Amino acid sequence: MADIAGLLSEVVGHAHVLVGDAIAADYTHDEALTAAPVVPACVVRPSSTAEVSEILRIARDQRVPVVARGSGTGLSGAAVPRADSLLVSFERMAQVLEIDTDNHVAVVQPGVTLQQLDEATAAAGLVYPVFPGESSASLGGNVATNAGGMRAVKYGVTRHQVLGVEAVLAGGEVIRTGGKFVKSSTGYDLTQLIVGSEGTLALVTEATLKLYPRPAHAATVLAPFDALDGVAGAVAPVVGSGIGPRILEYVDSLTMAAITGNVGLDLAVPAEVAARASAYLVVVLESDHDDRLEEDVARLGELLSALGAIDVYVLPPTAGTQLISAREKAFFVAKAAGADDIVDVVVPRAEIPRYLDRVGSLAQEHAALVTGCGHVGDGNVHLSVFQPDPERRHALLGALFEAGVDLGGAITGEHGVGTEKKQYFMALTDPATVDLLRRIKAAFDPDGILNPGKIFD
Amino acid sequence: MADIAGLLSEVVGHAHVLVGDAIAADYTHDEALTAAPVVPACVVRPSSTAEVSEILRIARDQRVPVVARGSGTGLSGAAVPRADSLLVSFERMAQVLEIDTDNHVAVVQPGVTLQQLDEATAAAGLVYPVFPGESSASLGGNVATNAGGMRAVKYGVTRHQVLGVEAVLAGGEVIRTGGKFVKSSTGYDLTQLIVGSEGTLALVTEATLKLYPRPAHAATVLAPFDALDGVAGAVAPVVGSGIGPRILEYVDSLTMAAITGNVGLDLAVPAEVAARASAYLVVVLESDHDDRLEEDVARLGELLSALGAIDVYVLPPTAGTQLISAREKAFFVAKAAGADDIVDVVVPRAEIPRYLDRVGSLAQEHAALVTGCGHVGDGNVHLSVFQPDPERRHALLGALFEAGVDLGGAITGEHGVGTEKKQYFMALTDPATVDLLRRIKAAFDPDGILNPGKIFD
Repeated sequence: MADIAGLLSEVVGHAHVLVGDAIAADYTHDEALTAAPVVPACVVRPSSTAEVSEILRIARDQRVPVVARGSGTGLSGAAVPRADSLLVSFERMAQVLEIDTDNHVAVVQPGVTLQQLDEATAAAGLVYPVFPGESSASLGGNVATNAGGMRAVKYGVTRHQVLGVEAVLAGGEVIRTGGKFVKSSTGYDLTQLIVGSEGTLALVTEATLKLYPRPAHAATVLAPFDALDGVAGAVAPVVGSGIGPRILEYVDSLTMAAITGNVGLDLAVPAEVAARASAYLVVVLESDHDDRLEEDVARLGELLSALGAIDVYVLPPTAGTQLISAREKAFFVAKAAGADDIVDVVVPRAEIPRYLDRVGSLAQEHAALVTGCGHVGDGNVHLSVFQPDPERRHALLGALFEAGVDLGGAITGEHGVGTEKKQYFMALTDPATVDLLRRIKAAFDPDGILNPGKIFD
Repeated sequence: MADIAGLLSEVVGHAHVLVGDAIAADYTHDEALTAAPVVPACVVRPSSTAEVSEILRIARDQRVPVVARGSGTGLSGAAVPRADSLLVSFERMAQVLEIDTDNHVAVVQPGVTLQQLDEATAAAGLVYPVFPGESSASLGGNVATNAGGMRAVKYGVTRHQVLGVEAVLAGGEVIRTGGKFVKSSTGYDLTQLIVGSEGTLALVTEATLKLYPRPAHAATVLAPFDALDGVAGAVAPVVGSGIGPRILEYVDSLTMAAITGNVGLDLAVPAEVAARASAYLVVVLESDHDDRLEEDVARLGELLSALGAIDVYVLPPTAGTQLISAREKAFFVAKAAGADDIVDVVVPRAEIPRYLDRVGSLAQEHAALVTGCGHVGDGNVHLSVFQPDPERRHALLGALFEAGVDLGGAITGEHGVGTEKKQYFMALTDPATVDLLRRIKAAFDPDGILNPGKIFD
């Protein structure tokens, strides 16, 4: 590896090749609860696409594995290096290259954080609508894992915003896909193939992202329900109403107490209602027009009452914002509470009542505590699993994933497979599909140097 | 081929294997203006996925090319068979399998037409929002070419509606991708790779499609402009206004006269305005709320006046519907007028003024008449090219495509590459990308039996 460090130093400069003790602990992990940290053989910090291309050429020649890293906020281990790998860290490629207000697109480097992009778009009255909850996350990482978040019910996930990429292939060739347009029937859609491929097909060095007008007004509506299936049953009617919520979340009462307690937020729900409530529906509506928003909030209130909500509260703006921000920190609350693992199964949204029912039974069967909240509007259920015994936990997770797949869903809606969900993915995916994924991987990366061992073996 | 016909008869029954004179002319062509009809060796009409699988197994064993066909309304030659090929026609797999009103999805077989699906969804108050202009087109063909149409400015194109497919691989293996959910980070996105691949990667035997609430109200606004660049310059401000039009089209005055004349539609534009107008902007707004629609129409009117429209007309509902339907027939009007070819370049929408300007110069340089209309809201320009000399036409087309690509666009926004745009695609795509496409093709279809010679060589 000494040789490689020397070769890489010629490309990026000595200061940007780290080995041994110079490698900070941050580079050794992401946020997956179950993945063990690994010190890579070498960290390299390129500053340009040309340097990334040179790095990959060297890695290919030496047959050294390459793992890409953005901010390391992933939840499935995809950015955790191997001991024999180069870790390519994009912290020096962190420029918002363009906010194009005529075409409503942003062009960014992979190290740009969501926070940075939100500030840049806000200044132009626009918004990049993917808010996965952690604003220090990088766009490169978001593209690699196809990150989602609470606004997917209205805007879709990362995949739906990526109009094109510049990417470096395993041999160092630089390709460009797509562009500043939403439609093209010009050859295979390489953009969408690269999005969500967790660094196993190519390294993205630039992304062209769709932006939207930033709506002027928003309102947060909170509706407690006696039972979880009341909340779950309200989802399809709310979406079907055409109100078009920006956010449509469920939060079970345990999780609600934990996330509001964490930030000291008092939602002013009367004690007798809070005592009865098993779960809450949280709906955020948005509009450019004050009067339309008010009208829609009133319609939503009537609808939720008719659907069996104990009561319906329109939160004061500050409390609304604080609740969403508290919800975004649910992962860290679960982590602090000692959750042993988290899952983010996606099912068809109308199957949510059935799925949550099944989760309840499985938790009992496996003697575990399972709490949750989730993007119910798009069928994405987030569960915290408390079961310290690895074997029992593994059995429970397998059963939770299988139940989701049985209902027509998939193992992960937005976290990705990485290393931590790989065994379940392999077990629940038909062999013809896994074979096809392997052949596609080989078409991009014949020597298997790009993030080997992630998603599938 | 006699042997194969026999083997296929065992799979689908004798009545559904056609050879020689039994092959109707319809099977030999699509709607591309420049592609010569070809009689395939054999037409086979499966009735199930299992039969498609058997057909592909036989074709693979015998190394016989396979071309898939829906309704044959394509515009780039992708469904034109080869003389040595099997043509798999999906006319017997034409069932709407499910309209799921809770999840807002439809599940269809490939032979289902847009007309059929529109009727089925209308009955449920829902809409499948892709209207490429020809309602006899099949969903299988729409998926294969990633069909677009006028509503893409609001809803996106076919790709954005396909949540999952069942597809048969070249070896006969049946895979399923995606499902009734909009988000998944579970392995590579095979769905999006198959959409738009023009039958070269797999045969789609079932598609799960996203549906939307069908808005109750719509209004059509017509704004004539003195000059083409006035129309083109209005696009970015209209989109930026947040009004969210369902349709945003430009139609030059020659094309407007032709398409309205074709259906005998009188838009009641005063003669002196019509005489001055070089081009028209056509905007359709929609809403569930009458009052909001009215308000938005008024705002749009003010905006268009400020942007230099000669006048702004809100069309009576019948005339509005007739105009959109007349616009949908623009291709057939161009064909009847003797257009020698059509192109559908896509550019970033803010580049439309520059692109149309360039088109004007190129038409002059190449002594051709080029008329047009287009989905300006999403940057997709449709041009009819009148230049009977093949060599001069080829030079002009090459220049039109190059100008689009130079402005950050792509060769085709929704028609596909097929055979008819292949040479231009090969000339304007970088070799590293073409190599990658070839390797992906080989990963799916190692023997090269699926629609060989389409998109690239």
